[in-house]
Amino acid sequence: MWQLFQFPLCPFSRKVRLILAEKGVAHELVRENPWDRRDEFMDLNPAGETPVLVETEQGITLIGSQPIAEYFDETVDKMPMIHGNAVMRAEIRRLVEWFDEKLFREVVEPMMVERMRKRLVSHESPDTRILREAMRVANNHLDYVDYLLDHRRWMAGPGLSLADFTAAAHISVIDYLGALDWRGHKPTKDWYAVMKSRPAFRPLLGERMEVIVPPNHYDKVDF
Amino acid sequence: MWQLFQFPLCPFSRKVRLILAEKGVAHELVRENPWDRRDEFMDLNPAGETPVLVETEQGITLIGSQPIAEYFDETVDKMPMIHGNAVMRAEIRRLVEWFDEKLFREVVEPMMVERMRKRLVSHESPDTRILREAMRVANNHLDYVDYLLDHRRWMAGPGLSLADFTAAAHISVIDYLGALDWRGHKPTKDWYAVMKSRPAFRPLLGERMEVIVPPNHYDKVDF
Repeated sequence: MWQLFQFPLCPFSRKVRLILAEKGVAHELVRENPWDRRDEFMDLNPAGETPVLVETEQGITLIGSQPIAEYFDETVDKMPMIHGNAVMRAEIRRLVEWFDEKLFREVVEPMMVERMRKRLVSHESPDTRILREAMRVANNHLDYVDYLLDHRRWMAGPGLSLADFTAAAHISVIDYLGALDWRGHKPTKDWYAVMKSRPAFRPLLGERMEVIVPPNHYDKVDF
Repeated sequence: MWQLFQFPLCPFSRKVRLILAEKGVAHELVRENPWDRRDEFMDLNPAGETPVLVETEQGITLIGSQPIAEYFDETVDKMPMIHGNAVMRAEIRRLVEWFDEKLFREVVEPMMVERMRKRLVSHESPDTRILREAMRVANNHLDYVDYLLDHRRWMAGPGLSLADFTAAAHISVIDYLGALDWRGHKPTKDWYAVMKSRPAFRPLLGERMEVIVPPNHYDKVDF
């Protein structure tokens, strides 16, 4: 069986958990705090980052959310994630990069540092200037997603794709950390309500990170 | 014909130029400075980043080096870039991410900011502390590449792949900016000499960014 090394508020771990659940790939979760830099984990992934997926019997180690996503889309037919013609597939991958790199770097990562790592690891107070800026930029990102969803049924076009699951993974972490003001973002809110109601999403929303409490609406499909 | 919006010291533009040349895809180059945030360019790519590849007659716009790489690997058989079984392909994509994200963020981006953008755009002096740290980390990255090449013929395994072209694109930018001390890195140096001697690489090495002069060894295959 696959073992997924992950932690609850890692958006890339969440993305892989959604993919495995949607595709029906059996796996067990192993909690890993990347900041511990555990020797055995560094041996698995010299970058020291979650997620890592291991199948001991077959001797397979898969590292990083996008290589893992492509792997299962190539090997498991159920719920195709990167589909359509080559141009459509490029658009899905463009949006995956948008969320994994741009949204992560501008919003998710600073929120995780200020609201989670400073609390759990370095025991400092969050920098309110950085938090305010991340929340301002988060609002711009929601505007862009509103715009996409005004023109398309799903994030990348007519079909549900990896772009939706990637966006939902990152947005769920920001929402957990209390940085999203949903007022004025009806298209994204409606889309996210649909994503949250998928069976693959429920276990994620039920999980809690120690010490850090999400806002009341976090796990509700009606929010 | 494809038009590639790019600029000379953008490692992601270089990665795409290498792919197009290796696969024999005809294209013309359009110089784009992302920091100008030109309206027409922002309309093409709301992220405002190079590379963007446009085919006007067919109405195709491809954005981002990895979606572009996957697109041409799916549509052009010549010189397969992401090859082998699914596990091999995951290893190729892991290393592409390593260079595009980790090496870029820890070394290439700070070097570009300090040595290029401050000079061309904001007219400030480089921060020598940041430069020294980037050069120290660059050395660790070369150690890791040495280790890979001690165990494998090419970066990701027995076959030349996208991992090699991605690494070469980033390393060529760092080398242009004078941040690489090649002493003590024979495996990587030998590999890079082979990459530099490929016909696809020659036009890149012949190009110069205004104002910024590369070190003497930069375009030499024997260095």
